[in-house]
Amino acid sequence: MGNSFGEQIQIHIFGQSHAKAIGVTIEGLPAGLLIDEEKLHAFLRRRAPGGSPLATARQETDTPEFISGLSDGRTCGAPLTAVIWNRDAHSKDYSDIRDMPRPGHADYTAYVKYQGFNDIAGGGQFSGRLTAPLCIAGGIALQLLSEKGIRVCSHIYALAGISDTPYALTGPFPDVSGKELPVINNDVIEPMRAAVAAAKAELDSVGGIVECAVEGVPAGIGEPMFDGLENKIARIVFGIPAVKGIEFGEGFGAAGLRGSENNDPFCLAEGEIRTKTNHHGGILGGISSGMPIVFRTAFKPTPSIAKPQQSVSLSKREEGTLTIKGRHDPCIVLRAVPCVEAAAALALLDAL
Amino acid sequence: MGNSFGEQIQIHIFGQSHAKAIGVTIEGLPAGLLIDEEKLHAFLRRRAPGGSPLATARQETDTPEFISGLSDGRTCGAPLTAVIWNRDAHSKDYSDIRDMPRPGHADYTAYVKYQGFNDIAGGGQFSGRLTAPLCIAGGIALQLLSEKGIRVCSHIYALAGISDTPYALTGPFPDVSGKELPVINNDVIEPMRAAVAAAKAELDSVGGIVECAVEGVPAGIGEPMFDGLENKIARIVFGIPAVKGIEFGEGFGAAGLRGSENNDPFCLAEGEIRTKTNHHGGILGGISSGMPIVFRTAFKPTPSIAKPQQSVSLSKREEGTLTIKGRHDPCIVLRAVPCVEAAAALALLDAL
Amino acid sequence: MGNSFGEQIQIHIFGQSHAKAIGVTIEGLPAGLLIDEEKLHAFLRRRAPGGSPLATARQETDTPEFISGLSDGRTCGAPLTAVIWNRDAHSKDYSDIRDMPRPGHADYTAYVKYQGFNDIAGGGQFSGRLTAPLCIAGGIALQLLSEKGIRVCSHIYALAGISDTPYALTGPFPDVSGKELPVINNDVIEPMRAAVAAAKAELDSVGGIVECAVEGVPAGIGEPMFDGLENKIARIVFGIPAVKGIEFGEGFGAAGLRGSENNDPFCLAEGEIRTKTNHHGGILGGISSGMPIVFRTAFKPTPSIAKPQQSVSLSKREEGTLTIKGRHDPCIVLRAVPCVEAAAALALLDAL
Amino acid sequence: MGNSFGEQIQIHIFGQSHAKAIGVTIEGLPAGLLIDEEKLHAFLRRRAPGGSPLATARQETDTPEFISGLSDGRTCGAPLTAVIWNRDAHSKDYSDIRDMPRPGHADYTAYVKYQGFNDIAGGGQFSGRLTAPLCIAGGIALQLLSEKGIRVCSHIYALAGISDTPYALTGPFPDVSGKELPVINNDVIEPMRAAVAAAKAELDSVGGIVECAVEGVPAGIGEPMFDGLENKIARIVFGIPAVKGIEFGEGFGAAGLRGSENNDPFCLAEGEIRTKTNHHGGILGGISSGMPIVFRTAFKPTPSIAKPQQSVSLSKREEGTLTIKGRHDPCIVLRAVPCVEAAAALALLDAL
Repeated sequence: MGNSFGEQIQIHIFGQSHAKAIGVTIEGLPAGLLIDEEKLHAFLRRRAPGGSPLATARQETDTPEFISGLSDGRTCGAPLTAVIWNRDAHSKDYSDIRDMPRPGHADYTAYVKYQGFNDIAGGGQFSGRLTAPLCIAGGIALQLLSEKGIRVCSHIYALAGISDTPYALTGPFPDVSGKELPVINNDVIEPMRAAVAAAKAELDSVGGIVECAVEGVPAGIGEPMFDGLENKIARIVFGIPAVKGIEFGEGFGAAGLRGSENNDPFCLAEGEIRTKTNHHGGILGGISSGMPIVFRTAFKPTPSIAKPQQSVSLSKREEGTLTIKGRHDPCIVLRAVPCVEAAAALALLDAL
Repeated sequence: MGNSFGEQIQIHIFGQSHAKAIGVTIEGLPAGLLIDEEKLHAFLRRRAPGGSPLATARQETDTPEFISGLSDGRTCGAPLTAVIWNRDAHSKDYSDIRDMPRPGHADYTAYVKYQGFNDIAGGGQFSGRLTAPLCIAGGIALQLLSEKGIRVCSHIYALAGISDTPYALTGPFPDVSGKELPVINNDVIEPMRAAVAAAKAELDSVGGIVECAVEGVPAGIGEPMFDGLENKIARIVFGIPAVKGIEFGEGFGAAGLRGSENNDPFCLAEGEIRTKTNHHGGILGGISSGMPIVFRTAFKPTPSIAKPQQSVSLSKREEGTLTIKGRHDPCIVLRAVPCVEAAAALALLDAL
Repeated sequence: MGNSFGEQIQIHIFGQSHAKAIGVTIEGLPAGLLIDEEKLHAFLRRRAPGGSPLATARQETDTPEFISGLSDGRTCGAPLTAVIWNRDAHSKDYSDIRDMPRPGHADYTAYVKYQGFNDIAGGGQFSGRLTAPLCIAGGIALQLLSEKGIRVCSHIYALAGISDTPYALTGPFPDVSGKELPVINNDVIEPMRAAVAAAKAELDSVGGIVECAVEGVPAGIGEPMFDGLENKIARIVFGIPAVKGIEFGEGFGAAGLRGSENNDPFCLAEGEIRTKTNHHGGILGGISSGMPIVFRTAFKPTPSIAKPQQSVSLSKREEGTLTIKGRHDPCIVLRAVPCVEAAAALALLDAL
Repeated sequence: MGNSFGEQIQIHIFGQSHAKAIGVTIEGLPAGLLIDEEKLHAFLRRRAPGGSPLATARQETDTPEFISGLSDGRTCGAPLTAVIWNRDAHSKDYSDIRDMPRPGHADYTAYVKYQGFNDIAGGGQFSGRLTAPLCIAGGIALQLLSEKGIRVCSHIYALAGISDTPYALTGPFPDVSGKELPVINNDVIEPMRAAVAAAKAELDSVGGIVECAVEGVPAGIGEPMFDGLENKIARIVFGIPAVKGIEFGEGFGAAGLRGSENNDPFCLAEGEIRTKTNHHGGILGGISSGMPIVFRTAFKPTPSIAKPQQSVSLSKREEGTLTIKGRHDPCIVLRAVPCVEAAAALALLDAL
């Protein structure tokens, strides 16, 4: 299947980049919830293109329309369905690529899986555009978590090989969501901007890493083995296009440490059991420890680049050169930041 | 829940380290399958402790007993249940730690989740011992995949900070499973062995990274969004204790590349559509491309170390020092290698 | 949750009677499918009110709009989402009943479950109107089954206590879907019509039984125990409002037979293994036998009646009299006929 | 799949009639639960054969052995696995029927589904013996429900066409579980006994109907549409072999009533909202109303009869006569009574 996530709170995402609409149905939300639409729109704007010189020139007015699940403005227990109508779709831009799969995209794999009937326009259901409904659901999840004292935040940990100051694993986690580039160290903004501009000028793109932290999750949340918090977060985060890796706490770095270095001693802090350090990233045995949950997600560079690339004609079975037209982000990492937060929020809400 | 995985082929793992038994029920296996028990035992021996000076001194004769699902020696369509009886359990070793959670273990998080009723002996259900039933199921999955021309292999990519030669992402993938230390470059064996011995001597432990490759998966396998191959593999791999990170293909390294570097051009090879390089690790949009699937899994150092560590008394709510007794692996990475293969096999079998 | 059904082909139904829209998302449809919209509309018209003097006076133009999942008019592998816009909603009609739950309706149980935030207008998500998206999905399922040589049909087995000729369990199953009242025996049409008219005149309603048959299902379909065809069909059929019972083959009648009467001897018919009789209704051990699947579904009389009824004021906690306004079917059985077919089709499609 | 049921509390049943063992794994039980084994054994004895002249002569000492999930005698959060070892298995009795499917059994459908690899001995996984693990899980569920003030009881509503006094739908529900034949009206015991004896003497069998009531379920439990209480109960109840129908409250009888007769007026009883009558059987819109849940389950006569029956040789593709050897219940309804209670308990526990 693929488009559904969650057990207690289930999301079902639908739509393709250039279908009439994209949207999401959310089952299991508590009844009586008043969605703060302004806050939700503000969250969605962080994902929307058009707001930044770093992002695509496409204008998307991703205002969700709630078509079911509300009564007198509150959730009523019925599934909540929100749609975003696709208005600014230039399907013609994609006419060439039906026969020549774009390197780094799902064009070829979808072609095989769906016997050529996949929707190619704008990447179809594999488009990053599908993260808009993910962010609708995630934005609502963030509001619910916030009521429970849980805060999700993130920053660009690295962009085009330029590293921001990493989070201290025990916090604090400064709120940088209001910055044009959500980084902790303002000194990396200019170099990052320049790297993106350079890539764009060279018809190329860059990748990056998003670091996300969740504060306020009580200890004891999660399930063992295959439904732990790490499994759940990983499962949903790999649903964001272009993600190629995830690590929790010390992550890959832990592989090079000694046990005595990586183990986090338990201690008492204001009468509460905590750990002195947080190499474990807030999760032990799949279950929350009460420490902040910290993880990093690796995004490959945008596969859509304007440089000519080698591909194969599916009909003629011969190699050739493909030049992708259309307007694309030279860097999707900026827009990926709220997507990671949305994914984390949905995974946690489902586990609570 | 947590102990179940899979949609088409479902596994349900049960047991605790010192329960009467651990085991697994597998639903959905094809009927008529003749399990090659010798091959299965050989696979399980790769996980079993006692075979290596690098591993724990505990003797486990992890011979599975099939108690249902077979008729005349073949699978009969009914769920296949295999159990391993726990015989060599020294529960007394763990009497101290009920009150003082071990750093880096799930003792504390399980204590909170299960209100103190969790089975502490040997780590209970969070013990690495539970990977034995995972490997029973995985070993059977590997046999089924093998019949379909799919091969899963892996090596120790890094141990205690010492790196083996990485796989070329496009292959070939040498079979090193017969070596005492499954590495490609024999020159790293001695340094790795020395590093483990040193850690052991210092009452400490080391971590490492396992690299796994899957060859022969046809293009078009997997689902979009939340049920892609990356999501599925990540979900099951994080079910192996001590895993803190996973990356596919170029992984975190892709975040520092340009699109033109990371995109894999399509080409024709013997009439088949392939990619020239394999930065994408065989998966695009969650769906197999026909190229080898390659991923790396980070294992933290064994949290059970003999060095005194700081912890907190749960009953007295005061800090104190804990010294863990018992026999533990200074390095679980060696035994983790077949677990990663088992996990990959189960994820793929479920997706086929 | 509740609004989702299926494993291989999943439907997610959303909407409330007076929400902006009702609809359904279908995951797992094969790509490349050309939906015969005319045929689908014809099927939906059988469910639509307004077409019969027996049914409600409300006009519903239940034309589905496909907002995702199609590309060039064919399914593309992405979830197919269809919505029906609610236009003819008289929400004012329901203002009185928020405080006084209607007997026989879900008003009170939904009030408790959703702490009073349930959408009361038109029955909210519990309205029979939600069978429209079920029929959209079911209508598509019927088209897919038809391509596989599987035919689903049904008739009114009983209405207001008046019985039609039952199906012979071994067939044939005459197509009566074109009749105004889908019965086999034309002689019962007038009595049934009269019974409904009488009930209506007396501000009352009647119930009935729908008998459904499925021909062409090959032997060997279904799963044992909890996922057998009977379990699956029962699970979805009880999703149709007002269903209070289901029986397969000889059903409750089998309880009074001897084994020698109820057992169906195996025989050969044109070289194929069949049974001479079909008391088992085409399902043995949850798995299809190759014989026609036959089941009956009991529908209670429409709970919305114009007669004054006793209820309780939720706010005042005192008993009182409720008179339901609005336009309601004196008999929903007629409209339930295609719903049963839709449910059967979806259950079978999921099992194939 | 088939052998799993439940979302919050999941059961996974395994085993075949003559496998080494049959058993069940239960996930999601609360930790710290002390299972009353004596009470559980007493419950299981109600299902066990050998205790009644009405039932099979086979001796089954269905004592469950808990092999995982307990620590110090209490549930510990890990999956609880119980097995029953199969000791009294006469596999030779079934040697003839591999080639000639028994009428009314799953032999033929399993043969097709599993390409002849199904376990034929004793009915394999389709044997009524598999209700033993269902009753283990159900017996534990009953203990959990009992702690919440929920009581499940049942009686033989009809046997061989002889009817017991039905439950008053609003209660009370007398406890007849201690009787050799659990009926309300003692006057039907002798006729029922005689009918079974007569059937047995004539190498035949009889069927019957079990009526089950659940008291103490608070209002507001259940989900709309496909996960309502009726859907859930029906899904699990059809997992009991030989079930061919289920109805709730007034059931099929409701189809012949007027709305004014079948609707249950709301009233106040000791300050609580109740309904005066209970035609709805405690469930409205899939959600509990606070009234007793009442349903009836139809069991076909035991398909295993000693009378010669017609069947087909699968190898020779020719018709022939089959005489089933072995010891079989002339009436499984008596043993089915606790199975229905177990199923109801598991469905409700999962919904709470």
